[in-house]
Amino acid sequence: MADRLLHRLLPASEWLQSYRKGDALSDAMAALIVTVMLIPQSLAYAMLAGLPAQVGLYASMLPLLGYALFGSSRTLAVGPVAVASLMTAAAISKVAPPGSDQYLAAAIVLALLSGLILIAMAALRLGWLSNLLSHPVIAGFITAAGILIATSQLKHLLGVPAGGHTLIDIVQELTPQLVHTHYPTLAIGLGTLLFLLWSRSHLKPLLQRLSLPELAVDLLTRAGPALAVVASTIIVAHWSLDQSGVRVVGEVPAGLPGLSLPQFDIGLWQTLLIPALLISLIGFVESVSVAQTLAARRRQRINPNHELAGLGAANIGSALSGGLPVTGGFARSVVNFDAGAVTPMAGVFTAIAIGVTAILLTPWFTFLPNATLAATIIVAVLSLIDFAIIRRTWRYSRTDFSAMALTMIGVFLVGVEAGVVIGIGASLLLFLWRTSQPHVAVVGQVPGTEHFRNMLRHEVITSPSVLSMRIDESLYFANARRLEDTVYNAALQRPGTRHVVLQCSAVNLIDASALESLESLSQRLQSAGICLHLAEVKGPVMDALQAVDFTEHLSGNIYLSQYAALADLDPTSLSVG
Amino acid sequence: MADRLLHRLLPASEWLQSYRKGDALSDAMAALIVTVMLIPQSLAYAMLAGLPAQVGLYASMLPLLGYALFGSSRTLAVGPVAVASLMTAAAISKVAPPGSDQYLAAAIVLALLSGLILIAMAALRLGWLSNLLSHPVIAGFITAAGILIATSQLKHLLGVPAGGHTLIDIVQELTPQLVHTHYPTLAIGLGTLLFLLWSRSHLKPLLQRLSLPELAVDLLTRAGPALAVVASTIIVAHWSLDQSGVRVVGEVPAGLPGLSLPQFDIGLWQTLLIPALLISLIGFVESVSVAQTLAARRRQRINPNHELAGLGAANIGSALSGGLPVTGGFARSVVNFDAGAVTPMAGVFTAIAIGVTAILLTPWFTFLPNATLAATIIVAVLSLIDFAIIRRTWRYSRTDFSAMALTMIGVFLVGVEAGVVIGIGASLLLFLWRTSQPHVAVVGQVPGTEHFRNMLRHEVITSPSVLSMRIDESLYFANARRLEDTVYNAALQRPGTRHVVLQCSAVNLIDASALESLESLSQRLQSAGICLHLAEVKGPVMDALQAVDFTEHLSGNIYLSQYAALADLDPTSLSVG
Repeated sequence: MADRLLHRLLPASEWLQSYRKGDALSDAMAALIVTVMLIPQSLAYAMLAGLPAQVGLYASMLPLLGYALFGSSRTLAVGPVAVASLMTAAAISKVAPPGSDQYLAAAIVLALLSGLILIAMAALRLGWLSNLLSHPVIAGFITAAGILIATSQLKHLLGVPAGGHTLIDIVQELTPQLVHTHYPTLAIGLGTLLFLLWSRSHLKPLLQRLSLPELAVDLLTRAGPALAVVASTIIVAHWSLDQSGVRVVGEVPAGLPGLSLPQFDIGLWQTLLIPALLISLIGFVESVSVAQTLAARRRQRINPNHELAGLGAANIGSALSGGLPVTGGFARSVVNFDAGAVTPMAGVFTAIAIGVTAILLTPWFTFLPNATLAATIIVAVLSLIDFAIIRRTWRYSRTDFSAMALTMIGVFLVGVEAGVVIGIGASLLLFLWRTSQPHVAVVGQVPGTEHFRNMLRHEVITSPSVLSMRIDESLYFANARRLEDTVYNAALQRPGTRHVVLQCSAVNLIDASALESLESLSQRLQSAGICLHLAEVKGPVMDALQAVDFTEHLSGNIYLSQYAALADLDPTSLSVG
Repeated sequence: MADRLLHRLLPASEWLQSYRKGDALSDAMAALIVTVMLIPQSLAYAMLAGLPAQVGLYASMLPLLGYALFGSSRTLAVGPVAVASLMTAAAISKVAPPGSDQYLAAAIVLALLSGLILIAMAALRLGWLSNLLSHPVIAGFITAAGILIATSQLKHLLGVPAGGHTLIDIVQELTPQLVHTHYPTLAIGLGTLLFLLWSRSHLKPLLQRLSLPELAVDLLTRAGPALAVVASTIIVAHWSLDQSGVRVVGEVPAGLPGLSLPQFDIGLWQTLLIPALLISLIGFVESVSVAQTLAARRRQRINPNHELAGLGAANIGSALSGGLPVTGGFARSVVNFDAGAVTPMAGVFTAIAIGVTAILLTPWFTFLPNATLAATIIVAVLSLIDFAIIRRTWRYSRTDFSAMALTMIGVFLVGVEAGVVIGIGASLLLFLWRTSQPHVAVVGQVPGTEHFRNMLRHEVITSPSVLSMRIDESLYFANARRLEDTVYNAALQRPGTRHVVLQCSAVNLIDASALESLESLSQRLQSAGICLHLAEVKGPVMDALQAVDFTEHLSGNIYLSQYAALADLDPTSLSVG
């Protein structure tokens, strides 16, 4: 019992109890590879968010510990990620000018709010809220964000100043700057870009042909960005290119971050609440889907509520140590998994390695060119951009495609936050629209049986005085009024109709709106001299109807089956088998 | 053909072609009774909206003509109504101080925007958007608005100054004023109130006992408010009570309104856009439900798109002639219907009668006490307040009740607009929550048959290696991820499972999110060595699945029936009949 409670509150207790030396070795190897990948990424994503480079490192220590304690995935690697950093930049650049102290303070508040929202969602079991984000909306959002991020980094590759948070703004600000392209910067940026693209596909086979040990191959394969960082830093430092206009990261304070409480400013908190909610939702959905995919490969399970708590702890950790919002990274987690991580201890080891980096390696980053980081970002987000899923959604369903397209247009033209909100709104409205016109069939008896089937598809017998209709959907507020009209009009247009029998075999729910509509339908039909009956009402639905005086408002009866209804209302019309 | 097009664009052409003298007589009688009822109401609702009295009259002329031309109900009576006037006050008091020219200008812009929104909804066939308003939300909103309106009129009864747009504000502002109650005003107000309440139930029987002609009885029964207006005006004028502090309507300009274009101010339009949308939606839903109820009694039909166009034309007419937002009134339409109106010409006659009133009778309104109008409003909104529907919803469904309760709390504590928005949001979220956990049953073969039933409810045979599950809901974004987990966990928890077969007989839709989830489920199960199959997939769903390469992503097969699946995967487990 005590064990169970402990596991529930602190999932880490489960794997810590049986942690062995072999596990530690595997985790440490994976941590090494992830660290090599994470160092350039954390610097790059801090730059993407418009924050000082060290903030990226700070967001890669405590958050990893927090997730390791409270998260349920064994192999998820958390930290700064591209999309969350873009959303961070979009949110906080509204409240403070980039580069200011207020800007950094706002990023920290944003991380804290994200953490608190995620923890609250875990406590209130509100994980299902993430269902608001349909797959097409997420997919469209991620691809659009990827394109937006890649475009936003072009200024660093070209070595020109430009801003903007929508595609139009970015392109508009960038175009007049093209003539001012700084060619040394462009050379470094393009060089890095080409090297990284080449290394993604060609480095591993090359290293394998050199018959290096497997760990070395793995390490070097993932070290592409790190190698680029080292090489370009050396080039810039050696030829003092920073003096001739190549923008560099500049001096990065060495050492671990101090712990401090984010500033409390009710106005700022209110402004950042919705952005924090959107970052949390997107981060949670992405994170859970990576965690689930990886867990499945080892027949493990993840618990969405623990994921909320783990990510919440990670973000609060980030806020306390001066970092930006974090979540589980896709590529990073896959690398962690493939490199053999068996428990979240790999994350703890990664955090320690990043800590060592912050203490010892920061002087090296002074001459690191921004163009190199920009190239790292562009190559990383290429994997987010997925046109295949867009084509596939188009082929599968125009409705889903519309939600996806509206999301993408929202991201491009209005911004990331608007994109998410538009996407959620559009998918809800489209779903309502879709279910507001359910399939309704006029049915008749299949001769010699007690079955009733759609008269348009089967040879069936229908009664001249009884109209039998089957409704293939739950009855709820979005379709109640329309069904009322559909049935009413069908009854009035069919001369000689004295009774309407609704076959409710596919009706899983009748909500209060549909109840009112049924009563109103009964009344309207009665005014027209037609009696309304129901048949084959499911047990739970019947229970609810009986809790109110529905049968008194219904002009007709409720029959066990469509056949029983016809046998009562117009027995001569039936064919007896 | 030309006729049909004409009917579609101008529904009035249909009944005008066959209009006869007898119809005109019936319509004129109904118009007379409605006018007697409408005069005090239009003055009162203008006061409720914080506008000069004549604005109410202006909103009862052109709008009626507009609706007569474009609406599809034969008997709906449009004009200023209580709820729309309250919402108007709430919206425009945010942009201008009551009593100012800007305040009146804002009301006119609000009417114009409502008209444009309704016309746009008609043109784009967006009438289904009104489905966003579920019955419980509407019912809760109307009752809460009724209570709010009645409370807001107490200040006029007491003859004290007080404001506020939420229940709390009103009560807070009113309480300290109680000691300043103006007793002559209170006497007039209470007297009117008691007379109106008495006349609602006792006047008609009394008049019938006097054996007056039927028309006179009808007219006098509806004339309660008009009689109160006349009596209290004479009392005030005779004893010059306005000199001793009884607040009166004051001078009302005589004559018809001039036509003019509402002012164009982009900022004002933007601010009023959402309120106008909410007023339009609420007005449309209420109006359509009255129109439908009345149409049904005479076996007529109404066309929701024509209703949108008719109400749109009415509001644009109101804006052009300096009025406030209008819609179909419930009580007024019932009176019109009962009094024998047969075509919208009754509305035209009513408009003419109101025009005559505006030209000839306005001097009489100078001494009309506000307390009388307040009493008229209170008695009118009593019919809006419906506690029975609240109790009934509570008994029927806690989910629907929650949406209703949140709407009412929203209206009371935050305001009318917030109430509608909260109600819409809550019913959407609650619906998503409800369908996010659909009924899933493990099924088995009913011995000797090809039927598969829930193993918890029936004696069935199950295969040790094949897990058969039936899902009783369409698969879409709100439940896709959860179903993925439910099925995955069920399969993993049942030792010996090699195959999972999902019976899809109750699945009417698989959206793109559910498609992704099915593929991910297939992948996750495959990683765990389990094969996923589908059975009994409906035709349209199968068509969509085949449009993409779903079968390639599915580890197993798609079977025609659950029985066929078992016959293929584990034939020895089946009982042969």
